[in-house]
Amino acid sequence: MTRHDGREVDQLRPVNIEKNYLMHPEGSVLIKVGNTKVICTATIEDRVPGFLRGQGKGWITAEYSMLPRATAERTQRDSSRGKVNGRTMEIQRLIGRALRAIVDLEALGEKTVWIDCDVIQADGGTRTASITGAFVALTIAIAKIHEIKPFAKFPIVDFLAATSVGIIDELGPILDLNYVEDVAAAVDMNLVMTGAGRFVEIQGTGEEATFSRDELNTLLDLGEKGISELIAIQKEVLGEAANLVGSLKEEA
Amino acid sequence: MTRHDGREVDQLRPVNIEKNYLMHPEGSVLIKVGNTKVICTATIEDRVPGFLRGQGKGWITAEYSMLPRATAERTQRDSSRGKVNGRTMEIQRLIGRALRAIVDLEALGEKTVWIDCDVIQADGGTRTASITGAFVALTIAIAKIHEIKPFAKFPIVDFLAATSVGIIDELGPILDLNYVEDVAAAVDMNLVMTGAGRFVEIQGTGEEATFSRDELNTLLDLGEKGISELIAIQKEVLGEAANLVGSLKEEA
Amino acid sequence: MTRHDGREVDQLRPVNIEKNYLMHPEGSVLIKVGNTKVICTATIEDRVPGFLRGQGKGWITAEYSMLPRATAERTQRDSSRGKVNGRTMEIQRLIGRALRAIVDLEALGEKTVWIDCDVIQADGGTRTASITGAFVALTIAIAKIHEIKPFAKFPIVDFLAATSVGIIDELGPILDLNYVEDVAAAVDMNLVMTGAGRFVEIQGTGEEATFSRDELNTLLDLGEKGISELIAIQKEVLGEAANLVGSLKEEA
Amino acid sequence: MTRHDGREVDQLRPVNIEKNYLMHPEGSVLIKVGNTKVICTATIEDRVPGFLRGQGKGWITAEYSMLPRATAERTQRDSSRGKVNGRTMEIQRLIGRALRAIVDLEALGEKTVWIDCDVIQADGGTRTASITGAFVALTIAIAKIHEIKPFAKFPIVDFLAATSVGIIDELGPILDLNYVEDVAAAVDMNLVMTGAGRFVEIQGTGEEATFSRDELNTLLDLGEKGISELIAIQKEVLGEAANLVGSLKEEA
Amino acid sequence: MTRHDGREVDQLRPVNIEKNYLMHPEGSVLIKVGNTKVICTATIEDRVPGFLRGQGKGWITAEYSMLPRATAERTQRDSSRGKVNGRTMEIQRLIGRALRAIVDLEALGEKTVWIDCDVIQADGGTRTASITGAFVALTIAIAKIHEIKPFAKFPIVDFLAATSVGIIDELGPILDLNYVEDVAAAVDMNLVMTGAGRFVEIQGTGEEATFSRDELNTLLDLGEKGISELIAIQKEVLGEAANLVGSLKEEA
Amino acid sequence: MTRHDGREVDQLRPVNIEKNYLMHPEGSVLIKVGNTKVICTATIEDRVPGFLRGQGKGWITAEYSMLPRATAERTQRDSSRGKVNGRTMEIQRLIGRALRAIVDLEALGEKTVWIDCDVIQADGGTRTASITGAFVALTIAIAKIHEIKPFAKFPIVDFLAATSVGIIDELGPILDLNYVEDVAAAVDMNLVMTGAGRFVEIQGTGEEATFSRDELNTLLDLGEKGISELIAIQKEVLGEAANLVGSLKEEA
Repeated sequence: MTRHDGREVDQLRPVNIEKNYLMHPEGSVLIKVGNTKVICTATIEDRVPGFLRGQGKGWITAEYSMLPRATAERTQRDSSRGKVNGRTMEIQRLIGRALRAIVDLEALGEKTVWIDCDVIQADGGTRTASITGAFVALTIAIAKIHEIKPFAKFPIVDFLAATSVGIIDELGPILDLNYVEDVAAAVDMNLVMTGAGRFVEIQGTGEEATFSRDELNTLLDLGEKGISELIAIQKEVLGEAANLVGSLKEEA
Repeated sequence: MTRHDGREVDQLRPVNIEKNYLMHPEGSVLIKVGNTKVICTATIEDRVPGFLRGQGKGWITAEYSMLPRATAERTQRDSSRGKVNGRTMEIQRLIGRALRAIVDLEALGEKTVWIDCDVIQADGGTRTASITGAFVALTIAIAKIHEIKPFAKFPIVDFLAATSVGIIDELGPILDLNYVEDVAAAVDMNLVMTGAGRFVEIQGTGEEATFSRDELNTLLDLGEKGISELIAIQKEVLGEAANLVGSLKEEA
Repeated sequence: MTRHDGREVDQLRPVNIEKNYLMHPEGSVLIKVGNTKVICTATIEDRVPGFLRGQGKGWITAEYSMLPRATAERTQRDSSRGKVNGRTMEIQRLIGRALRAIVDLEALGEKTVWIDCDVIQADGGTRTASITGAFVALTIAIAKIHEIKPFAKFPIVDFLAATSVGIIDELGPILDLNYVEDVAAAVDMNLVMTGAGRFVEIQGTGEEATFSRDELNTLLDLGEKGISELIAIQKEVLGEAANLVGSLKEEA
Repeated sequence: MTRHDGREVDQLRPVNIEKNYLMHPEGSVLIKVGNTKVICTATIEDRVPGFLRGQGKGWITAEYSMLPRATAERTQRDSSRGKVNGRTMEIQRLIGRALRAIVDLEALGEKTVWIDCDVIQADGGTRTASITGAFVALTIAIAKIHEIKPFAKFPIVDFLAATSVGIIDELGPILDLNYVEDVAAAVDMNLVMTGAGRFVEIQGTGEEATFSRDELNTLLDLGEKGISELIAIQKEVLGEAANLVGSLKEEA
Repeated sequence: MTRHDGREVDQLRPVNIEKNYLMHPEGSVLIKVGNTKVICTATIEDRVPGFLRGQGKGWITAEYSMLPRATAERTQRDSSRGKVNGRTMEIQRLIGRALRAIVDLEALGEKTVWIDCDVIQADGGTRTASITGAFVALTIAIAKIHEIKPFAKFPIVDFLAATSVGIIDELGPILDLNYVEDVAAAVDMNLVMTGAGRFVEIQGTGEEATFSRDELNTLLDLGEKGISELIAIQKEVLGEAANLVGSLKEEA
Repeated sequence: MTRHDGREVDQLRPVNIEKNYLMHPEGSVLIKVGNTKVICTATIEDRVPGFLRGQGKGWITAEYSMLPRATAERTQRDSSRGKVNGRTMEIQRLIGRALRAIVDLEALGEKTVWIDCDVIQADGGTRTASITGAFVALTIAIAKIHEIKPFAKFPIVDFLAATSVGIIDELGPILDLNYVEDVAAAVDMNLVMTGAGRFVEIQGTGEEATFSRDELNTLLDLGEKGISELIAIQKEVLGEAANLVGSLKEEA
């Protein structure tokens, strides 16, 4: 049995990352993962939040939102409801935490990076596409600063990408769920991993269901495969800037 | 003396309207007016707000927002601040009111149209670009319904577009201000007009300044010219659907 | 055909402005325009908002509200709803902007003037009555400071008043609409003008209707007439203080 | 030693109640107690809140607010702060509770009365002036309905008025504190009583101070005197309508 | 006729105060008054709110809340409703004010004490139990500081406890109402008194009812009796620390 | 090297679950895991939220909160800040989702279960203690209904408990982190598992760190051990009611 869009169970959707999508931000991309489209931007501010002041460390924080008609049914804006909903909060906390795991905040110095991920069109996997795209926007922004005034150590120490895996009754474990698959899935898992193949986040959830240790292992295998492919795409898109990741300033 | 981007005082920026930009909404466009880019969508819902129930009339309401990095400096999200700011409210009220002026709400029947205008990139004139784009998204959405179950009278009775005009000390009155011009302007005026050349909205404001009746007349002339050019572009983009505007169902 | 209250089409309602209506504020009036009654106060604070600090300039900001039973039906308080509604925001932004157009903010120095307009009884034209009354309250407050410590240049450089004009199908263009006329009007326009006859704000709106350039011109003529009459009343009420408007400190 | 405004310790400030102060509400007064001025209105709605539906009983609820410049220093609006402050809540709960004590809610039937007390000018005792004024506005409103369609039992069963008493170190116990006295008072007590001389509310508070049983008794004596004088004024203002209070429909 | 739980009309419910109930706060108790259980904590912060800065005085502020299932029906959390309700506000203002009456804020110095009263289980009298318990938590916290760095004058100058009294039609005046009695009461009064037998707060309310001066006196007698018993319990629980209340530092 | 509290790396803290801790809720416990103390209650309501109405299915929803002084530093109440913070939202979504995984919502029928977890004292692991305790409160509440009117199938189909595991640089992987360990941990993982040893949730996070697949496996082994011990405790506490979990109604 094959997936409704013809993919193999271990196949990502087509991924496209357009660099410098917007004119104003220091770093920006439009990432497309199948029909999911997210604008990711990175804004660098020369100060840190109160709890970090005077420690010589930077900070990375993220916000996430969807256009009302990113979805099949119109979604009410958070601003109209007067508060950010729980799902949005979870996602923006996840994005920020994931990026902080591959950034050396001391090397960054007393700067805040604001990551904004705005979903233009949603077809499943918006949070993982946001992380994968945000990594590129962040690297572009940091590289832009680095060009002007090089860091002793480039603050981004490894690559980072994310994808989803899940279990559907008829198909078993699959990679990179679109919306229809996401709704059908009994188990849903988001994975964030580094270029070195290490885990940053595992968020696996039974949706009124449970899963065994064996099933977990199959899901992790699928995720590792997908994320290594995503990181290959990030490197291609970043071009020369990719070499800065994990680098130290060359001595003369 | 010429404008900093080389335009004549009575010249619009390049305008591009991409139809069906998103997969989910009934009607959607990406409108570009120079560097200003707005996604406009129209969502049709089969019911009306409480105050209109049972009157056989429809309603059109609009929401407007900017991505945080649509602007040169990052703007805080309304949802983070927990309330919609005054400027946003004014703009979304304006968009809704303007569209209602060229829609026959009785002909529409008990439906609500939600217009969403999300500014992806801002370089002045976001509210007028929103109106010009929203008109196209609305027409596409209504035409889609009309195709399935034709209206006795097509609810959109005339074209509608908007532009800005203003007075800059060194240049005098000019058409279609970009952001740099907007900041410099002593007088700023938004005009919304119909295909028949009638006014829907005039919002002229002295920014710590005032203007004479003569200056007003020059501004109105500039605006009329710009809007007729915008409507020509809308017609081209809409293609056949343009003929539905103002039409009655043909009798057999 | 005459108006339901017997006025000519170009006739204002009876206007009365009671000075120093309240004991606490630096400037205060109760303005009555027909049955519309608004308490306008001006409060002067010796500091400016953050965005102006250290620039040697002042600021004027306005708040507007209606008592719940200013209207025929009880209106819910903004404080009960937990947010300021869109109409209120538009009006308070308009009042502040209008007053700033006739105040030399450099001459004012680093002061903030808070204008509060509270509608006690509403019968149409509450925002224009607010502006007309607020001008008088502002002038009284500034004159009070001037008396103690004269400004080199009196910060209020011209008179300012506002009225509404509109088009009713059976009557055509009329001046100073009361509530019944406002509801019936196809076109509704608020005008704010100076003592020198220059425009500060034009806000003309078709209410599910449109208007021609000729109709616009007739409306502007009516508005100019009404505003010059309102300014005459302001001068009378202000008495000697009226002479300060637009004046420089006399050299010895 | 006498009070700074020359009053005896057991003397009320001059009280004036202007009936039908506003054109729209069913009942309205402007009450002045010295320099304290409050607009009180009563609005009658033909339904009850959810928790009372279908029980054949009515409800009375109150809202209280101050104009920003009712006070010597400008007070921020609740609507700007986005929430009602604690003091306001206490006062509006008190006003509603007090009025319900002298209304037979069964006799009222399934109606809600909204009481709005808006302080135009504050000089101490705004909550007690609100209760005294609200009683008159309520009686006018109920009498208006009674005239059209008489109640079997007039729902207002007794008169109701309120005043404050307090202890100032230099003066001892005094009646009807103005703002200066209120600030100086070590003990502050609000009393609400009926025409029959019974208590509805006693709210006595030591302000970083305490009071003895004897002092309490003196305060209660002063309060009883003041309230009986206030009720005499209410009767005079209400004229014939005063006779309805506590009455039954006359049998034919 | 006896009370439904077998108590005499002038009898308190069993009272138990468990000291140092929580490990983190400077002072904490679990107070049980019959089935009413409240956790009271005192937190001392080394600074004061803005309005007191630089005056050498301290401040005491209180917050009060109920667990959703402290009550027979689940109560919605204030945080879910997005605002603190009126009853909660009244209670927390009362608790703070009551404690400030027996604290010498100058002797306390520039410190803020946060009192938190969280009702775990409610069976009437939660606000009075909160005050009685909070006094003990406060004394423990202040005594802890005093041990390390003795105050010249111990800031707590007298004991403080609270109880409720009320009138039930069938029973007449009674002491310490439980929930069933509270619902049935025509008159409900909360009393806060000191160790010296002086009043801090009297809040007596007719619930759609009124009361006479004689009834008031009986209620006050009952309250005095109950409060003196509660203070005896507080002294026992506090042990040696009880001797600090009202004491000066011993001279060497 | 041993843990600072003397535990082995694979050892839980002492766990105590007190049944029927509160008098009002259908099900309630006080769970203690070391110094962490949480009151968990289950409230059953005979209706479902709008999105489930008429489907014959039930719903389980959870709320989570901490007393301000559950923590070493006082935490501001969500209700004072006017919104629920992101961490709280994540936790309450997790609790609800976890419980729904072992409840047959069709068997439950059109009922909503409200789970409230209120942390009285926090020392790490509050969310996992909440889940472990909430399971017991839920089972008690459902069993109480079952006793009165037996379900055809007991809606709780398996046991459910949760614990945390993590990696500390000096210690390597450990089970059941207290607060000090939690702060020190480079990797932090919450596990929710069933009586059958299946996963419901895995939430593993590198805190500015990453982890390998091998480390993940060790963490999962530790978690499985801890959860089986917790479930043994739950069974003992539940007594006879434990037999209902996963049972069908016996046929006659």
